[in-house]
Amino acid sequence: MFLERTPVTDIHMRTIAFTRGVPPDAAIPVEQLMACQEAVLKADVGVLQYGHKPGYEPLRELIAGEHGADSNEVFISNGSIQILDLLAGCLVRPGSFVITEQPTYDRTIATFRRHGARVVGVPLEADGMDMGRLEELIRREGRPDVLYLIPDFQNPTGSMMSLAKRRAVLELAERYDFPVIEDMPYRRLRYQGDELPSLRQLNPARVITMSSYTKLISPGMRVGFSIADAGLTRKLVELAEATYLSPVLLTQAMVYEYIRRGYLEPHVRELIALYRPRWQAAVDASRKYLPEAGLTAPDGGFFVGIMLPEGARVDGLLERAGKAQLGLTAGASFFADADDAGTIPGDRFVRLPFCALEPAEIEEGVRRLAKLL
Amino acid sequence: MFLERTPVTDIHMRTIAFTRGVPPDAAIPVEQLMACQEAVLKADVGVLQYGHKPGYEPLRELIAGEHGADSNEVFISNGSIQILDLLAGCLVRPGSFVITEQPTYDRTIATFRRHGARVVGVPLEADGMDMGRLEELIRREGRPDVLYLIPDFQNPTGSMMSLAKRRAVLELAERYDFPVIEDMPYRRLRYQGDELPSLRQLNPARVITMSSYTKLISPGMRVGFSIADAGLTRKLVELAEATYLSPVLLTQAMVYEYIRRGYLEPHVRELIALYRPRWQAAVDASRKYLPEAGLTAPDGGFFVGIMLPEGARVDGLLERAGKAQLGLTAGASFFADADDAGTIPGDRFVRLPFCALEPAEIEEGVRRLAKLL
Repeated sequence: MFLERTPVTDIHMRTIAFTRGVPPDAAIPVEQLMACQEAVLKADVGVLQYGHKPGYEPLRELIAGEHGADSNEVFISNGSIQILDLLAGCLVRPGSFVITEQPTYDRTIATFRRHGARVVGVPLEADGMDMGRLEELIRREGRPDVLYLIPDFQNPTGSMMSLAKRRAVLELAERYDFPVIEDMPYRRLRYQGDELPSLRQLNPARVITMSSYTKLISPGMRVGFSIADAGLTRKLVELAEATYLSPVLLTQAMVYEYIRRGYLEPHVRELIALYRPRWQAAVDASRKYLPEAGLTAPDGGFFVGIMLPEGARVDGLLERAGKAQLGLTAGASFFADADDAGTIPGDRFVRLPFCALEPAEIEEGVRRLAKLL
Repeated sequence: MFLERTPVTDIHMRTIAFTRGVPPDAAIPVEQLMACQEAVLKADVGVLQYGHKPGYEPLRELIAGEHGADSNEVFISNGSIQILDLLAGCLVRPGSFVITEQPTYDRTIATFRRHGARVVGVPLEADGMDMGRLEELIRREGRPDVLYLIPDFQNPTGSMMSLAKRRAVLELAERYDFPVIEDMPYRRLRYQGDELPSLRQLNPARVITMSSYTKLISPGMRVGFSIADAGLTRKLVELAEATYLSPVLLTQAMVYEYIRRGYLEPHVRELIALYRPRWQAAVDASRKYLPEAGLTAPDGGFFVGIMLPEGARVDGLLERAGKAQLGLTAGASFFADADDAGTIPGDRFVRLPFCALEPAEIEEGVRRLAKLL
């Protein structure tokens, strides 16, 4: 399959990039996508016209069916960040109050802030948010306009929200009457353990589900989707039409054709087979070279998150790493700056995206990181 | 070529839609696009990855070359409305002052308003804006943050800005120090007369040029571009990355391949051959059935705009047209509501997009319209 090995001999020369969560080129099913796009263009010139403003209709129906939703609850757009931006446009105003996990996806913090929201992070534990801190925060500061979570293999920590916490967060959402966004682009990439119900499965009325085909098929196709009540979905579609008129339909139709042909399930199995040894290498290397660090050993996804011990030498870490041919992302960007404890340990946080690197590169990268501290 | 004729016998039964400016399906070069996308995917898996945040790099360079610009002045995005939204995000704030032609593209008014701008329209004449009114407005209300124009075959009137007015508007822009957006999606579709220099050709430093391949290749591919100074372009790219991360690259690469293969120029000639009789029919029918109306007979583009005479029966026109199987767009939506004269004749304005209709349908549609007044 797609296990092209590069020679391990030159690994000490190579730059190793633990920067963004990008799949390797070899994980993109180019041949199948070529077949799909030819079929799509032959079948329906409509994908080259304006139209399907809520997203390519057959894909809407397919996603609705998979999630036990109605197709008028499904919205498909040019990638899930675009959806988050439109959701922010519908749900928040300057001064709105948004709660996220801490740390969380840096672009989520930036998106809600760009729309004028105050974003507060609640510390994340290995099994999800610190629920006591969440409730305390809501009691003190009032009902949030949105709570944003990545329950499965969280970005950037890899953490998995337990069933008890999933239930507890939804009870809070009921009690204080706020919507919960669950962002689940990594959910299908599980390397061990059992799947837990999604928040939507537990309480569809409270939950806005978001995901995309970026991590399962291709990032460049920019096909993301949301599932929300029909009223909010209608607002999203209206704002989307005002913003970009119609989405790019060709890639949405290609995703539909890809799934319709039965290509997705075997491809996900191949991805898991490709990524599992990389995940294992990231966990093992972190334990081996950084035994003092706080590690959320994930069961799936794209990331291992590491909290370096207090006192680790983190000043100028990115620059020093760059000189050692090691690419890192600034840990602080994953932390909303209004941590209710008042301390932001972001400069000690390191995210290791492992999917695009080979096991030997991952081990070498973590070894280089440890030497810098 | 693509002149598939439908029988004229049933024309009186048919719904005739003068609603949006959409090319007919037959004008979309599906076979060539299929060849292009296959070539693109074979050549570069990169179009399925994240990347090329300012737009597909080879297409940026090609557009820059065509317009005598530097590639770092070119930004390509998911359609030109998306670019207008991002431009508004960079150039206006709540309370900003934007001037447009009156009437103008309805989505432009809506986009600037959504960003909080006050939009004022300056009456359009057959050869462009009323320059006296424009200068009077600026003297009275101060420098605008943006002036937005469609100099070639304007939407919705078809009007063409004269060379004298192009020069005059740029002199005003210099004197009062404001940027001018020229939106030129229709420029290549000229059915008679000679091309005038674009505003960019007259004064590149003052002008933000926007266009797209929607009217020349396909709307659904959503490939629009802007040319602006490198500083503003950098801001656009940053806001775009924050909003949707990367654009959909596949369709941008297809457009590049389409042009690289030399397909565009003959296709534009075919489009002109297809649209010219439709344009002629729209102009002729307007003169024949609405001789009292104010008509800007355009030399190209997608639209004939008609100002019905005072006293024409326009109450409930859209509903009455609908019952007569005639689709119309509300004329008032093309008028910013702060016309400095205080009178908005939008309810007497009718836009006739003619490209997607056959000559006989156009004549029948205008005949139906005349009977309703």
